[in-house]
Amino acid sequence: MDCIGVVDTTFARVDMGSEAIDELRSLAPDVVVKRITVPGIKNTIWGAKKLMKEGCTAILVVGWVGPSLTDKLSYLAMSLGLIELQIQYDVLILDATVHEDEATDEGELKLIAIDRARKHARNLVALLRGDLTEAAGRGLRQGRPDVGPII
Amino acid sequence: MDCIGVVDTTFARVDMGSEAIDELRSLAPDVVVKRITVPGIKNTIWGAKKLMKEGCTAILVVGWVGPSLTDKLSYLAMSLGLIELQIQYDVLILDATVHEDEATDEGELKLIAIDRARKHARNLVALLRGDLTEAAGRGLRQGRPDVGPII
Amino acid sequence: MDCIGVVDTTFARVDMGSEAIDELRSLAPDVVVKRITVPGIKNTIWGAKKLMKEGCTAILVVGWVGPSLTDKLSYLAMSLGLIELQIQYDVLILDATVHEDEATDEGELKLIAIDRARKHARNLVALLRGDLTEAAGRGLRQGRPDVGPII
Amino acid sequence: MDCIGVVDTTFARVDMGSEAIDELRSLAPDVVVKRITVPGIKNTIWGAKKLMKEGCTAILVVGWVGPSLTDKLSYLAMSLGLIELQIQYDVLILDATVHEDEATDEGELKLIAIDRARKHARNLVALLRGDLTEAAGRGLRQGRPDVGPII
Amino acid sequence: MDCIGVVDTTFARVDMGSEAIDELRSLAPDVVVKRITVPGIKNTIWGAKKLMKEGCTAILVVGWVGPSLTDKLSYLAMSLGLIELQIQYDVLILDATVHEDEATDEGELKLIAIDRARKHARNLVALLRGDLTEAAGRGLRQGRPDVGPII
Repeated sequence: MDCIGVVDTTFARVDMGSEAIDELRSLAPDVVVKRITVPGIKNTIWGAKKLMKEGCTAILVVGWVGPSLTDKLSYLAMSLGLIELQIQYDVLILDATVHEDEATDEGELKLIAIDRARKHARNLVALLRGDLTEAAGRGLRQGRPDVGPII
Repeated sequence: MDCIGVVDTTFARVDMGSEAIDELRSLAPDVVVKRITVPGIKNTIWGAKKLMKEGCTAILVVGWVGPSLTDKLSYLAMSLGLIELQIQYDVLILDATVHEDEATDEGELKLIAIDRARKHARNLVALLRGDLTEAAGRGLRQGRPDVGPII
Repeated sequence: MDCIGVVDTTFARVDMGSEAIDELRSLAPDVVVKRITVPGIKNTIWGAKKLMKEGCTAILVVGWVGPSLTDKLSYLAMSLGLIELQIQYDVLILDATVHEDEATDEGELKLIAIDRARKHARNLVALLRGDLTEAAGRGLRQGRPDVGPII
Repeated sequence: MDCIGVVDTTFARVDMGSEAIDELRSLAPDVVVKRITVPGIKNTIWGAKKLMKEGCTAILVVGWVGPSLTDKLSYLAMSLGLIELQIQYDVLILDATVHEDEATDEGELKLIAIDRARKHARNLVALLRGDLTEAAGRGLRQGRPDVGPII
Repeated sequence: MDCIGVVDTTFARVDMGSEAIDELRSLAPDVVVKRITVPGIKNTIWGAKKLMKEGCTAILVVGWVGPSLTDKLSYLAMSLGLIELQIQYDVLILDATVHEDEATDEGELKLIAIDRARKHARNLVALLRGDLTEAAGRGLRQGRPDVGPII
């Protein structure tokens, strides 16, 4: 792979991009990582495509989503755009989004953001090197502790 | 057909992929089954396309969906992505998704997951061999007992 | 036109496909009608495209939609997929879907299903032969009695 | 421009198509206006494309939307389909939709429908002849009196 | 870049287009700015594409969204259309939309509109000249004061 791209936002309240890059560099030190920062989640499609044109064949999008219905619909728009990119260009895109209604406490939200960004960075590298079948159905979570399989 | 693909997730709390594969192998022992596991439902489009590029012309996606509005919108994004793949590439894709708000009891959720994965595996094979017209309008359900036609 | 396709589901609790076919044959006895049955509404896109590849240039989709938000979003996914097919392939697709929350009584639901399937079959034939301008703004309903224009 | 197309429905309870055509003919008497009537809003994409193939480069869609969530999602599907047509074919499409939950009184709904259809007909002609910059940010409304800019 | 396009609406109650243009001219005095005004947010896709065909490679859409569910779904349709344009044509599009339910007071709404239009104009120029990585994760807001990063 030529490079892994990271797309993050100025809207986010945690520097998820740096967390993701740190994790990627630790796991795959020989891979070039490129980063672009955009205003908000709906702009990540443009950012991802820009990095694709610069040679990235895998992208990690780390986004931050407000709590309102408008924000939820923006999240849907982002999700569909990133899926469309994957269908058209055969690039792998994982998105790690934090939603402000996931926690009432700012500190907890920060922990979710860091954990989610890093775990999805690991997922991205794992998918590029093979797949995740050994963890299939294991109730893994990003941002929270794994809930595990139903016994 | 060259192969049937199965896409499952690490988010799921039941190993739906293995259930589906077991059923497929039982029904169509001469067919190659390929599997890929991705983190969550929005990633199943990438997984499905990867298996298509490896020769699979039919795909079973077994996903697990959380209970929040965000999860519902992710489900919508996944559904639209899988439909787009079918339109563009003439591949048959069935998705068997379990939604955490379908049951309050974990044990029940597990039974739903197994039943749904296996029944949709049967549907997939049936569609590949012909169609399901003899069961048209019969109120069939996957994950639950059939409700039957309105008399 | 080479043929009219009918796509129905095993999820439906009324044999809407047979109702639609009966109506189509009565109205256009010289037209070939092809039918395919799929598990649920999200699979009707694949079914419709299959019939299109077999020569059908007009399709009637008769679907059945559950009452939950998940079901509503599946309905949206289906609707968008069928619209995409019409844009890309210039085929006419009408969909007659019954929603379980339309009535509390099973018997009423059955009457809705039959009426809707048959009336949309008539609409399909009317559109293929011309258009419906004489009924424009007349408050026509399928599944229920017409409400009529506002006087 | 070769022609302006008008797409309306039999579901509507007001003959919005005739209102729109009357307004278009009054404003642009030398332009050919073509009309097609379809059953409901989701079918307007097929109708619009049909008129485009007959040479229309601008389309006015006048639709009527029920009050339920299902109806709202149908409205979304229609909106996305009409946007897709505009992206792919560089045609201008305005849609004037009346939503039954906009008024509790039938008479009021009728006035909304007529006003909206006619005002959007004017908008269509204005856009074809130039643009609407002189009215930018003026709080214009169709179906209701203008609310005006915030002073 | 050949030009920056600004798309605004007559539905808006604040002349956000003029605010955006003033900001763009101040920041990038040597760039040609083209403007088109359309009736409402769903029409901004057509407007954006028109400006793209006239040579604009970056677009700022300033829209105004009502408070109802119908309005929210129109916002979603707009968002998806603008994303599709960016995927297909590699143009950068930022949208600055004001939602009427963001404030109960008209004066506050006006301040939001002006602030958001101007800040997104700055974002657009910043993205065209480089990126926004120095502000990544800083909790920036448009329309409101920045909330800042979680410490």
